[in-house]
Amino acid sequence: MSSPTVKLNSGYDMPLVGFGLWKVNNDTCADQVYAAIKAGYRLFDGACDYGNEKEVGQGIARAIKDGLVKREELFIVSKLWNTFHDGDKVEPIARKQLDDLGLDYFDLYLIHFPVALKWVDPAERYPPGWTAPDGKVEFSKATIQETWQAMESLVDKKLSRSIGISNFSVQLIMDLLRHARIRPATLQIEHHPYLQQKELIKYVQSEGIVITAYSSFGPLSFIELDMSSAHNTPKLFDHDVIKSTSQKHGKTPAQILLRWATQRNIAVIPKSNDPTRLSQNLDVTGWSLEQSDIDAINGLDLGLRFNDPLNYGIYIPIFA
Amino acid sequence: MSSPTVKLNSGYDMPLVGFGLWKVNNDTCADQVYAAIKAGYRLFDGACDYGNEKEVGQGIARAIKDGLVKREELFIVSKLWNTFHDGDKVEPIARKQLDDLGLDYFDLYLIHFPVALKWVDPAERYPPGWTAPDGKVEFSKATIQETWQAMESLVDKKLSRSIGISNFSVQLIMDLLRHARIRPATLQIEHHPYLQQKELIKYVQSEGIVITAYSSFGPLSFIELDMSSAHNTPKLFDHDVIKSTSQKHGKTPAQILLRWATQRNIAVIPKSNDPTRLSQNLDVTGWSLEQSDIDAINGLDLGLRFNDPLNYGIYIPIFA
Repeated sequence: MSSPTVKLNSGYDMPLVGFGLWKVNNDTCADQVYAAIKAGYRLFDGACDYGNEKEVGQGIARAIKDGLVKREELFIVSKLWNTFHDGDKVEPIARKQLDDLGLDYFDLYLIHFPVALKWVDPAERYPPGWTAPDGKVEFSKATIQETWQAMESLVDKKLSRSIGISNFSVQLIMDLLRHARIRPATLQIEHHPYLQQKELIKYVQSEGIVITAYSSFGPLSFIELDMSSAHNTPKLFDHDVIKSTSQKHGKTPAQILLRWATQRNIAVIPKSNDPTRLSQNLDVTGWSLEQSDIDAINGLDLGLRFNDPLNYGIYIPIFA
Repeated sequence: MSSPTVKLNSGYDMPLVGFGLWKVNNDTCADQVYAAIKAGYRLFDGACDYGNEKEVGQGIARAIKDGLVKREELFIVSKLWNTFHDGDKVEPIARKQLDDLGLDYFDLYLIHFPVALKWVDPAERYPPGWTAPDGKVEFSKATIQETWQAMESLVDKKLSRSIGISNFSVQLIMDLLRHARIRPATLQIEHHPYLQQKELIKYVQSEGIVITAYSSFGPLSFIELDMSSAHNTPKLFDHDVIKSTSQKHGKTPAQILLRWATQRNIAVIPKSNDPTRLSQNLDVTGWSLEQSDIDAINGLDLGLRFNDPLNYGIYIPIFA
């Protein structure tokens, strides 16, 4: 089983379903990537910040060596961390990340957050995270325009085929579109029934930019981080609307949540350790929810965001 | 009675209470401004878009001529409309607005919205509004950085003493602060118990930027525009929490709502036609709400925004 693709404004095709590498442990990562490729996954969504790009690269290398897949059949996504927004720091870190991955180009490279932090030498601390060792947040003066121009030059140099953004909201996207020579191909955002962001998605799609949803299962991703708002919110898998839709279609709650996104042309990047769930998560495109199912899930919006720096004790209120 | 002032990061003092000129009719405007100056108002908050700057100027001129006030005792605020964001259009329109007002400098000049629309010749249509006569919205490619640099040059040329922004959210403010040579002195936003924007205010104040609240009475400002969400929301003046706080302090509900802002160092710009209310609205600084009163009002937040282009049928989802 494989995933259908969506055409990006860069001309490239991106799988609508991929494997998300956030919180994938270093010791299992290479095997998980290998298993996912074997199960049919072609898109891998990683980031400097996830701290596992070497292991991702090992899994990819093994799969290619074993003949499971060719490089050009894969769609490798990574992200520029906040500490590398200065114009002259973008290419060096992209090259280091490619080196870690054992690749010579990204399929898609995103600005991870619209937050410019002071440069940290990768030889000193990697991944650098949000704060210095003393817990302080130190900002850089790099504007989004400066960073984006450096991202554009990655395309010119064929280090990335497409470029995009993550965690941006409309005012800043509008400003980016005013100066962009190469438009962002995708916007990656937190998106699940409790945080639907309908107006943001409508606007971004109307601009020909593909939306990728992260944390499609809502609070579940954040319980393992021990976030209190995640503990205090009903799990989506147990929600009556999701459960009844699941029974009606003979699909798992996870599949319902993923299909709710893909059916609206939103890409998804679930992860799993379990071979059965790995296959199930990929099987979220060949069948349809009814409009009434979608409407019922649309009714669950709470505007409840989990992945906010404020929820990690980092005072950068980017979503205000 | 007059208003205490707050010190701006530009070094100038701004009255904490002013008179808002939005929706002040052309035929009564000059008299209202004159009466407000007589009642003690020193700050007037206008805009190109309000379409009444000539009349505002007439009211000011008469008050100065009659010896009620001197120019340097007034604090005149105006705003750059969306159609004048192109770098080379800022100074000409600022000069035209000053000419309409009969003044040679603004005390404060704001970017009205983070929206760049195609230039409209003032000789052709003024104020230009959101859309062309055929109802279309036409954008400009001017970035906020380009517009802000032109705003900064107004300060250099002494056409405005301070400059600021309005209706910006944090991601774009953070980006502006990265490139600003002159930091914005104020941010003007919709702010009332139903739309409190606590995180935005906390961040902006922590950056040394003064918040000015507009539409302090919530839905009331929008009922006259026949906005359905305003009709369907309980009036704040009738709300139990506001009424009981009003009775407790022997102040009007309007005064409670304004004091709730000023006590947190947020400037307010109410308007009124009525001489009694004009005085009452100015009397919102010399007395205090208790923390329990403030907490009770803080509990009314609904995240309910009225002044959104989407609510006027204009498809520019800047608050998504």
